[in-house]
Amino acid sequence: MVQNSSALDALGTRDRIVVVAARLIQRQGYVGTGIKQIAKEAGATLGSVYHFFPGGKEAVAVAAIGYSAEEFAELLRAGLAGDDAPGAAIERCAGELAVGLRESGWVDGCPVTAAALETLGTDSEIQRVCAEALRGWERIVEERLLGAGFSVQDAREVATTVIGALEGAEVTAQVARSEEPLRAVGRQLARLVGAYGE
Amino acid sequence: MVQNSSALDALGTRDRIVVVAARLIQRQGYVGTGIKQIAKEAGATLGSVYHFFPGGKEAVAVAAIGYSAEEFAELLRAGLAGDDAPGAAIERCAGELAVGLRESGWVDGCPVTAAALETLGTDSEIQRVCAEALRGWERIVEERLLGAGFSVQDAREVATTVIGALEGAEVTAQVARSEEPLRAVGRQLARLVGAYGE
Repeated sequence: MVQNSSALDALGTRDRIVVVAARLIQRQGYVGTGIKQIAKEAGATLGSVYHFFPGGKEAVAVAAIGYSAEEFAELLRAGLAGDDAPGAAIERCAGELAVGLRESGWVDGCPVTAAALETLGTDSEIQRVCAEALRGWERIVEERLLGAGFSVQDAREVATTVIGALEGAEVTAQVARSEEPLRAVGRQLARLVGAYGE
Repeated sequence: MVQNSSALDALGTRDRIVVVAARLIQRQGYVGTGIKQIAKEAGATLGSVYHFFPGGKEAVAVAAIGYSAEEFAELLRAGLAGDDAPGAAIERCAGELAVGLRESGWVDGCPVTAAALETLGTDSEIQRVCAEALRGWERIVEERLLGAGFSVQDAREVATTVIGALEGAEVTAQVARSEEPLRAVGRQLARLVGAYGE
């Protein structure tokens, strides 16, 4: 994620709005993030936010969650890219998430969970984009497992478990302010994945 | 959770406030739940909410999250109580969570995740009570695994993984409006736990 202001300055106004909104939603949730705050931190007028996003806050959030989802997908693809066993690759991803969380002061966690939970039971586009993000991340893990010889059914179930466990362990790591939950889950997921090869 | 109004009516005012706040936070998050809404749905005046909770919304939320945490702990203890293998018991718990979610129209999920994520990086008591809730649930799983002969280290790591994966899979099940993510994760956790006995 673009964290510093000089990198932000290099972006056009629309992209700055999306990146700033992504970071705010990740840290405060969807409900607690106001469109005025997004405009202010993006160095944009409220008018230009509505110019790019006539649908207002929900439309900005849909773009922001999509941006964050792709960012996490890239991290996952890079983390899983090695030649090693898929279990080791997944454990490495968990470790990278733990380091990233710690370096952010435990605030830059999953861009999807809070927004998903805050809009439950609504027909909000937010729900749709969160479901798509989770499914997209599962597919990346699935592909890696299929490449390692897993059956379609096993690859799918294990991928759901990997993404679910990483999601949940991120929250635990964030409130405990400790890398250990993600590290422990990484080791156990490696064990689970390894058990298929035995 | 006390869902219907007649059961709510039987409670004293303080307990009604706590139970109603717990349900609202579970469904809308902490930020999106206002103290006026809590008072209204609990059939209490705003004055009586402040009488019982001079600390206002944060104090109500701390009590509500504590209440929800104990409620989930009871479900977990009951689910893990059988004489069967711990993996089968964990898979059964995941199935019960899936059924409960579906029956609630996918809205009554984890009472902790959204509130935890919305208050990240703050010194809020909410963070403390969420961390305690997660640790308490992990301990219940840990005890069950210790009883089945797991080492202290394995029991702790697997328990962190079980709670993390159930947390994450609940969110996935909620946005996908499907029992399958929790069912799949239940089967995979059973496999992981079973792999220790082999």
